[in-house]
Amino acid sequence: MSVMVDEKLTVCSPKGFKAANTAAGIKYEGRDDMAMIYSKAPCVSAGTYTKNMVKAAPVLFDKERTKSDTPINAIVINAGIANACTGDEGFEICNKTTEAAAKALKIESESVLVASTGVIGKQIPVDKITAGCKALSKKLSDTNEAGIAAAKAIMTTDTIPKYCGVEIEVGGKKVTIGGMTKGSGMIHPDMCTMLCFITTDCNIEKALLQKALLSSVNNSFNMISVDGDTSTNDTCVVIANGLAENEKITEEKDDYNLFKEALQSVCFNLARKMAGDGEGATALFEVEVNGAPDESSAKILAKSVIGSSLTKAAIFGHDANWGRILCALGYSGVAFDPYKVDVTVTGNGKTLMLCKGGMETDYSEDEATEILSAKEVRCICEMNSGNSSAVAMGCDLSYDYVKINADYRS
Amino acid sequence: MSVMVDEKLTVCSPKGFKAANTAAGIKYEGRDDMAMIYSKAPCVSAGTYTKNMVKAAPVLFDKERTKSDTPINAIVINAGIANACTGDEGFEICNKTTEAAAKALKIESESVLVASTGVIGKQIPVDKITAGCKALSKKLSDTNEAGIAAAKAIMTTDTIPKYCGVEIEVGGKKVTIGGMTKGSGMIHPDMCTMLCFITTDCNIEKALLQKALLSSVNNSFNMISVDGDTSTNDTCVVIANGLAENEKITEEKDDYNLFKEALQSVCFNLARKMAGDGEGATALFEVEVNGAPDESSAKILAKSVIGSSLTKAAIFGHDANWGRILCALGYSGVAFDPYKVDVTVTGNGKTLMLCKGGMETDYSEDEATEILSAKEVRCICEMNSGNSSAVAMGCDLSYDYVKINADYRS
Repeated sequence: MSVMVDEKLTVCSPKGFKAANTAAGIKYEGRDDMAMIYSKAPCVSAGTYTKNMVKAAPVLFDKERTKSDTPINAIVINAGIANACTGDEGFEICNKTTEAAAKALKIESESVLVASTGVIGKQIPVDKITAGCKALSKKLSDTNEAGIAAAKAIMTTDTIPKYCGVEIEVGGKKVTIGGMTKGSGMIHPDMCTMLCFITTDCNIEKALLQKALLSSVNNSFNMISVDGDTSTNDTCVVIANGLAENEKITEEKDDYNLFKEALQSVCFNLARKMAGDGEGATALFEVEVNGAPDESSAKILAKSVIGSSLTKAAIFGHDANWGRILCALGYSGVAFDPYKVDVTVTGNGKTLMLCKGGMETDYSEDEATEILSAKEVRCICEMNSGNSSAVAMGCDLSYDYVKINADYRS
Repeated sequence: MSVMVDEKLTVCSPKGFKAANTAAGIKYEGRDDMAMIYSKAPCVSAGTYTKNMVKAAPVLFDKERTKSDTPINAIVINAGIANACTGDEGFEICNKTTEAAAKALKIESESVLVASTGVIGKQIPVDKITAGCKALSKKLSDTNEAGIAAAKAIMTTDTIPKYCGVEIEVGGKKVTIGGMTKGSGMIHPDMCTMLCFITTDCNIEKALLQKALLSSVNNSFNMISVDGDTSTNDTCVVIANGLAENEKITEEKDDYNLFKEALQSVCFNLARKMAGDGEGATALFEVEVNGAPDESSAKILAKSVIGSSLTKAAIFGHDANWGRILCALGYSGVAFDPYKVDVTVTGNGKTLMLCKGGMETDYSEDEATEILSAKEVRCICEMNSGNSSAVAMGCDLSYDYVKINADYRS
């Protein structure tokens, strides 16, 4: 990733994009729970969605819409109720939301996307979402403050808003990408309950936008796990309004590659933020697998470790229990020789090899504990069986994860 | 399962079997950590072992030995150190253990099986295990008390010893099966850190003993999960000394079917005990899937729910969050129509349908909370898509799971 991400940029940074936030009272009292993104200039869109068989109504709704050629002007998001397992009524709520937004914005209802996150199985109160759309449309602003407020409004159990962006030059024109995401639990994206919205003023063909998004998501959001639970609502949408006026990207050449790299950088940054803010997390936990026979194996191995409850609990306890890491590599389904594997941990700027050739080194427990007490811990598994690498991102497993999820609905 | 399990029987119940326990000081101070099972009459053996790529030395050791025709007289178990990731030295410890046991028992070292559980990556002190074998051989007894003490000696984070047995009649002769198991964390058997030892006086051909064991394990231990972590040490061994003097079982006819059913009953009972005693568990959580298109799908669906951290946390919180159950069915990988699924919970002798046709019923939250506060909670998922069923067993996810595993080694 050679494209530098700017953590001050938001979905409002690309030309022509506005955002807004409001407290619609759908679930939470006294805090924002709805957001809107708007571009007067019509956008091409691309999206990736949960592969869960149980798909929320807005997932099915947006999936159809981003597949079609319909230009998009707005996205309406609520963070109170997931609108999953809600049958025909849930789908009807999506329609009514787009109609309310269209009316308030004086646009076509077909040009509106919807997204939801929150409790499963409850219906969204139509009056509240309609009033919310009206309030949002009046508050739209292109300032970074508005972008940040929107990122806050879509939070559920998240503890920090997550946004960033990049600026690149495409054919002499400045192209900007801005993104925001939410997600903290039920995070095991196959496509996470994550929602991610990315805006760009890039002028790019729809098919290539979709291709760049898929590639970016596979190497970012799809490489994180908080709890192994793949949500019903995972959604990642990018909309591009072309206002950067770069020569339209229509081929997979230099311009496309640069844009893809930039998009990937934004997705990776947001995914990493999400992993570090996993429910109850006290540390970001990254697993880097090197020397795997192929990329797919590298990804499976890295995700197996990041998903291991025992390893995550050990990280929470600052315990150098490398055996659990080897164990998790071992049940991943990938074949390898255990006695070739080296395991190294890094954190607080220090590096320590715990396991060499599948067996314990004579590392110092004190040093290990110091490293594992860092806020960002990385475990490097060298398989010594090839040249492929992958990085998966997650967090530790703490008392607070249990606490948050033992009474999420109440 | 029409064969009734007797929860008072132990590995000493079948004719000719003795057991012993001792405090060898391998890991724990002031408590037993080694056990031995012994039959003077030579036994045919069968075993199933972890499919983890990282296999502990005793797993590799026993796997070879139970595959061969070598008669077995004894099993030596230590519950302090897993002897996994220990290289050639670890394998040598297995040899030295069998030699020490053979010398003490005046038998061939080839007739001894070994098993280990505990921390990964540490070497077992040879002198302690040798002294342990000597002490065990002197203490062997055929009483039920000895069987229970052995079941206690193999515990790690288990809170209760787990043993049971059955008596059946085969060709006019009483045949007895007794079993004991341990396992509480790193439990997600593909074949679980579970160890299970079953003794029987049945006269049965080795190939059929292996076949009956595989079938029993697939429907019992392989259907439980505490934390999704498949151990490096999972071992389930059955040894049969033939002293019941029934006509040898050599064909898959009535006698075999009865024996298989009896063995399955013992495995199921022990697996259920293990699930209920999962690390930090406050409740046994069972998931029954009915109406699935085929048995394999039913098993995958049931295991997906039992493995969901979010669902397990909800059970700990007595929260009727059925959306998480649907969500976990949905990401299992099995295709189904979400709007056909009914979800019912039972506990404390009460039954309540939370979800009908994929959507919420108007159940009473108070009633749901009461049911979910039971010590044994069962969730029944009716898929309405076929005739196949499966039951998976696990437990809730509590603060104590995290606590136990944040500092397991210390």
